[in-house]
Amino acid sequence: MNIIRPTLVLNKTTCLQNIELMFEKAKRNKVRFRPHFKTHQSHEIGRWFRNMGVTQITVSSVTMAKYFAADKWDNITIAFPFNALETDELNELASQITINIVLDNVAGAKRLSTSLKTSIGVFIKITTGFKRVGISHNSITEINQLIGEIEKNPLMNFKGFISHAGHTYEAKSKNEVQHIHFDSLFKLQKIKDLYSTRYPDLEISIGDTPGCSVSDNFQGADEIRPGNFVFYDLTQHSLGACKIDDIALRMHCPVISKQSYQNEIVIYGGAIHFSKDWIVNIDGKPLYGRIVIKHNEEKKLLPNTEYLSRLSQEHGVIRVSPDTFRKVEIGDIVEVIPAHACLTAHAMGRFVTTKGETITMMERF
Amino acid sequence: MNIIRPTLVLNKTTCLQNIELMFEKAKRNKVRFRPHFKTHQSHEIGRWFRNMGVTQITVSSVTMAKYFAADKWDNITIAFPFNALETDELNELASQITINIVLDNVAGAKRLSTSLKTSIGVFIKITTGFKRVGISHNSITEINQLIGEIEKNPLMNFKGFISHAGHTYEAKSKNEVQHIHFDSLFKLQKIKDLYSTRYPDLEISIGDTPGCSVSDNFQGADEIRPGNFVFYDLTQHSLGACKIDDIALRMHCPVISKQSYQNEIVIYGGAIHFSKDWIVNIDGKPLYGRIVIKHNEEKKLLPNTEYLSRLSQEHGVIRVSPDTFRKVEIGDIVEVIPAHACLTAHAMGRFVTTKGETITMMERF
Repeated sequence: MNIIRPTLVLNKTTCLQNIELMFEKAKRNKVRFRPHFKTHQSHEIGRWFRNMGVTQITVSSVTMAKYFAADKWDNITIAFPFNALETDELNELASQITINIVLDNVAGAKRLSTSLKTSIGVFIKITTGFKRVGISHNSITEINQLIGEIEKNPLMNFKGFISHAGHTYEAKSKNEVQHIHFDSLFKLQKIKDLYSTRYPDLEISIGDTPGCSVSDNFQGADEIRPGNFVFYDLTQHSLGACKIDDIALRMHCPVISKQSYQNEIVIYGGAIHFSKDWIVNIDGKPLYGRIVIKHNEEKKLLPNTEYLSRLSQEHGVIRVSPDTFRKVEIGDIVEVIPAHACLTAHAMGRFVTTKGETITMMERF
Repeated sequence: MNIIRPTLVLNKTTCLQNIELMFEKAKRNKVRFRPHFKTHQSHEIGRWFRNMGVTQITVSSVTMAKYFAADKWDNITIAFPFNALETDELNELASQITINIVLDNVAGAKRLSTSLKTSIGVFIKITTGFKRVGISHNSITEINQLIGEIEKNPLMNFKGFISHAGHTYEAKSKNEVQHIHFDSLFKLQKIKDLYSTRYPDLEISIGDTPGCSVSDNFQGADEIRPGNFVFYDLTQHSLGACKIDDIALRMHCPVISKQSYQNEIVIYGGAIHFSKDWIVNIDGKPLYGRIVIKHNEEKKLLPNTEYLSRLSQEHGVIRVSPDTFRKVEIGDIVEVIPAHACLTAHAMGRFVTTKGETITMMERF
């Protein structure tokens, strides 16, 4: 493979292993595997899931649902508080395939209801601690009001409760991820119990990659929706959700400059390639990526004291040891393991496999 | 204009004013105006510059140079330490139009030299204090070595010194921006003086938007290359480089959820729309955007205590006052002024003008 500018290289073998492990875990635990496709946004990678037996998927937008419907996915959950301004597109899509949407408020439900023309599944979004969207697990009055609103429209089929325990991303240890995972399951189970007489087929759908990776127990859940595990990244690694070798993506970047006065190597590879997401490094500073260099034909992962520490639009700055500084030359290609795979993949818009095949993704609009 | 999902709206009138002001400033100061096109990356917006009389431009990659060459720009400086792995593409491009490149090290110059087949202009990148790339303004030995290397190859025409005083972005006041601007000019002038007998046509090219916006004195410079001023953004506003009304871009986003327990409004509009760049708000926290709401048919800019404070892949969270919380409804469109226009424009990949016309940008690859 002749790389001349920043290229997002996907290790297909690692990726397939990641998919298989999660697929088997779901099977073993007797929960439906409905992977979130927002991480890869690719027809081709979607087919790798299909070949393994996956038939139902999760996406994060109506646009993405349309993209995957075009590749014959016919059972899709749009796991994002439904934006009622897109109801016309929802009507069209739901007339062709099975669509589930997510609601977390009565106003949105009312607005959707007035122009809904097709039958859809509806999940109520519950938050078990992650403060972004969703009705709090203990706001039973609000849940009742929303169920009441859903029941008014026979085109809305109340399916159950959906949650994303995104606060696992703030966990300080693998144990804390486990704790949040079980705490969420417990809270969701309690809500389910409240309504199970009236709705015997009610489902619980959970989703975060840290919880699904770290745990091997999903008791109380009917479905899991992890997404990031398909590639993993340094964020997941820092949470104990994967090993470094499980990370399937690396950005290959040319070295364009070296600054000896501060032992910095500058690569062609910046914010437009990696996005600007980061994790906190051991020195308390933002880490945008970890570095693999090739020296004497051998690849070596640099310690996390030598890392991608600054990003401009096209430049990336790697602060290294004097020894590494001497080894890396202008024109070399270094490999960068990204902090956040979803945003990096989205920023690049395509992958190249280690065998040199190009894999396309959804267009941005 | 019927907006149903995040849409980057460009105010063309404001944009044209921004272009005209900088064009006139350059003319008044008798410096060449070579605007940086990495901010807009658009043929159409490029033509607005051309209609005003601009004939020479700056870009940040070989890919971008090819994109603008395809729209008849025939004098382009690629203001990024040249990546010698792209020499074949450079040869092709430079055989058709005038291309200037930037070098900051002998190793890169040697590598380029071995496969260069076409005549190009070469600027030496100097850093006057911004620690990213470039030879330090007082490393005369290094500058001499690089000039020596350039002189070895008659296809490389030494044109002068180029600098980007990017440390203006860390300035704490307008005065400090001015200070850095003049300090840079002074340092570059000193280098020019050293070489002016041997190279009487030597040029000094400077570039940052804060310096070019705040100052009206470019003595010693032959060329200015600001880019961001075409749109401006909250970063520039925080530096005193523009007024809020000079900012030509706003992301229009649907409101999808409201969280009363913490007075938060959630919009469809996240990291894939805004990028994840931010400025430090008055409360010391990351600010991704400021908010304009419409209430009783009137538009109102919210104070900077109510701002876009968190971003996920598709979600944006705006913490507001109880009063604003009551006014904004699910399904409303709020307008977000972005922290960083260049990355936001790049993330979106297209603009829609306030009159509803779509303006395309360069593809990502």
